[in-house]
Amino acid sequence: MMRRLLPRCAPRATAAFIAPRRSPLGLFPAARQYSISPEAASETKLQDIDPSKLVLTRTSKPKPLKKAEDLVFGATFTDHMLTIEWDKTTGWHNPHIVPHQNLSLDPASCVFHYAFECFEGMKAYKDKAGQIRLFRPDRNMERFNKSAARIALPNFDSKALIDLVAKFAKLESRFIPEERGYSLYLRPTMIGTQKTLGVNPPGSALLYIIASPVGPYYPTGFKAVSLEATDYAVRAWPGGVGDKKLGANYAPCIVPQREAMSRGFQQNLWLFGEEEYVTEVGTMNFFVAIQNKQTGQKELITAPLDGTILEGVTRDSVLSLARERLAPEGWNIVERKLTMAELDEAATEGRLVEAFGAGTAAIVSPVRAISWKGKMVSCGLKDHEESGEITTKMKNWMEARQYGDEEHEWSYVC
Amino acid sequence: MMRRLLPRCAPRATAAFIAPRRSPLGLFPAARQYSISPEAASETKLQDIDPSKLVLTRTSKPKPLKKAEDLVFGATFTDHMLTIEWDKTTGWHNPHIVPHQNLSLDPASCVFHYAFECFEGMKAYKDKAGQIRLFRPDRNMERFNKSAARIALPNFDSKALIDLVAKFAKLESRFIPEERGYSLYLRPTMIGTQKTLGVNPPGSALLYIIASPVGPYYPTGFKAVSLEATDYAVRAWPGGVGDKKLGANYAPCIVPQREAMSRGFQQNLWLFGEEEYVTEVGTMNFFVAIQNKQTGQKELITAPLDGTILEGVTRDSVLSLARERLAPEGWNIVERKLTMAELDEAATEGRLVEAFGAGTAAIVSPVRAISWKGKMVSCGLKDHEESGEITTKMKNWMEARQYGDEEHEWSYVC
Repeated sequence: MMRRLLPRCAPRATAAFIAPRRSPLGLFPAARQYSISPEAASETKLQDIDPSKLVLTRTSKPKPLKKAEDLVFGATFTDHMLTIEWDKTTGWHNPHIVPHQNLSLDPASCVFHYAFECFEGMKAYKDKAGQIRLFRPDRNMERFNKSAARIALPNFDSKALIDLVAKFAKLESRFIPEERGYSLYLRPTMIGTQKTLGVNPPGSALLYIIASPVGPYYPTGFKAVSLEATDYAVRAWPGGVGDKKLGANYAPCIVPQREAMSRGFQQNLWLFGEEEYVTEVGTMNFFVAIQNKQTGQKELITAPLDGTILEGVTRDSVLSLARERLAPEGWNIVERKLTMAELDEAATEGRLVEAFGAGTAAIVSPVRAISWKGKMVSCGLKDHEESGEITTKMKNWMEARQYGDEEHEWSYVC
Repeated sequence: MMRRLLPRCAPRATAAFIAPRRSPLGLFPAARQYSISPEAASETKLQDIDPSKLVLTRTSKPKPLKKAEDLVFGATFTDHMLTIEWDKTTGWHNPHIVPHQNLSLDPASCVFHYAFECFEGMKAYKDKAGQIRLFRPDRNMERFNKSAARIALPNFDSKALIDLVAKFAKLESRFIPEERGYSLYLRPTMIGTQKTLGVNPPGSALLYIIASPVGPYYPTGFKAVSLEATDYAVRAWPGGVGDKKLGANYAPCIVPQREAMSRGFQQNLWLFGEEEYVTEVGTMNFFVAIQNKQTGQKELITAPLDGTILEGVTRDSVLSLARERLAPEGWNIVERKLTMAELDEAATEGRLVEAFGAGTAAIVSPVRAISWKGKMVSCGLKDHEESGEITTKMKNWMEARQYGDEEHEWSYVC
């Protein structure tokens, strides 16, 4: 079933139009004939985003604050939004902060027809001194640009947008509760706004950021989830766009997710190929801690960035923390493909220590069991446990840096 | 990102939740464990679309008509649009025809973030008697429902929507030029409008139809196109959504298309897998006529509907016409996988008769050559020819039914 598109040597180009270049798609590094040039992938020679040109229009009707405990992820929004228009002749227009309001778009706009849309998910935290902090915003901006380029939307200067995100987050700081676990979820979004039906690169676009105050993912402490392994649908594939944060990757996930829920599971686990590689859990990256069958060494394993895995900022942070703090304790930190059968074998032999999802919303989400081929693969938790040791440690280590308890370069003070 | 805080319920006993059902995704017919039940894929028990409830609000500013020869595909629109709202408690609201106008949507609407969007492309033709005719609208509606269900958008009664499409097309009939080759391109679109950021089935949606008068794809007669075979990016995958008409399938096509154009080709040709199967050309299905190497019999070949190929209405019509009119002349009409190497071999041996793309916009689009691995594979046309015999016949056969010259069940008189 799975057809891996391994790079293969092809005869060098005979015609002038074939230039051997590296592909920014990142998949077939050198051997393939045709690649996507940066020039073709995005327009960058026009006016860039200029934070000094920010125009602020304050709302005349500030919203009352919701009780912190009533906050639902992504359901209520702050007073304002940040907007920056782009067109192919001018480049980026002046940034605006305006009251959160509806967008008015022609029904022919290409975002409605061809999914010219990409986004980011990031959070602003309030530290003990009342300062607002972003977490690794450079990572989000880098990915945002990669996602945009992959669908012919414009790129921008990351530092300029981080500057604007920081100003926006500070403006909305009254919406961020002081308590641990609370934050302001920021949603940078870019959409194509060209209002013609030809399938072409959008000649105009809108970048906007909305913000939603959010509470702790597990208000009363961790709750381990159970997963259903999905083998009838495929989220991503080599040469596709599953490693980019495009809207296109999300709508197709809903039905498999709903199927899993209809059978009593909280999420689905995406498998890939005949080998049934374990790839992602719902919309999170997946980590598993197992004891090596041969050596007995403890290993923290996650899928490699082969083009089918979202390049999660939390994934990267977990790997970094693990290499810094678990490796010295004897752990082996590994990015490699892992099959469901391997996972099942480890569980059967008592070598599966724990498993968790990793993403911006939950940070880490402990996994109790996986339903696969009619059996339940237990992921190492005892009945009364809701989280494994590594999962808990990771959450605490991450939060220490997010909330600025531990001063670290990952934390960006606004 | 996803907040799934449902109380953890223990998965049911191992056997109960595994029902061996056929998957409507159509990919793993029987052997796989989990499938998508129709109930999970769409809500159908609420109020359906009711054409008798149509409310018409005529524009007070009818647009002047453009000169027929100035029409650009999908760039100008008619006076009105059809809109039908849906929500999960009511179902479909009353249909409205209103002046073509901007949509006003919250920036958190799920269509902007997770690509909850699907569409159709269909045309209304004016026959010699001045009647307006749709072409196989039942096929479009069937596919529209399949696309919507795959991304958890609501389904509807096909006949009811065809009735409304017909009313809408008749209302806009002054925009349809009389001349052969002209028509009114209709764009039924469905978008998710729920304004929360959780990745969930949309609780509200909007179905709308806009219309654009269009001219002949080749105003001065056929122009054969040259293609670049794309082997560094993959459009669709088994178990993915490449056979559905989702916005998600389109934005990722632009960069490869633009790459091909930057090297002087009109379109790209999508290959699949290590075998380099020929799948689609740009956003059209692909047909090739070759002489069988063993038997010498002429064969018209197109890729099978294996889940990676869009179920084109034109594709189906071409196959039907070929079985009806070419098969009796000794042609073999075949839906099978075909590799680029096979195509190249046939070209080298003088067995490649002709090749063409097939889709609603162009009907058929003759192909002159394909750039593949640094060589040009010639597709059977002589230098002075712009179309092969079968390609030309197909266009004429199709138009005879589209414009009602030949009375046929495919043509639906409004």
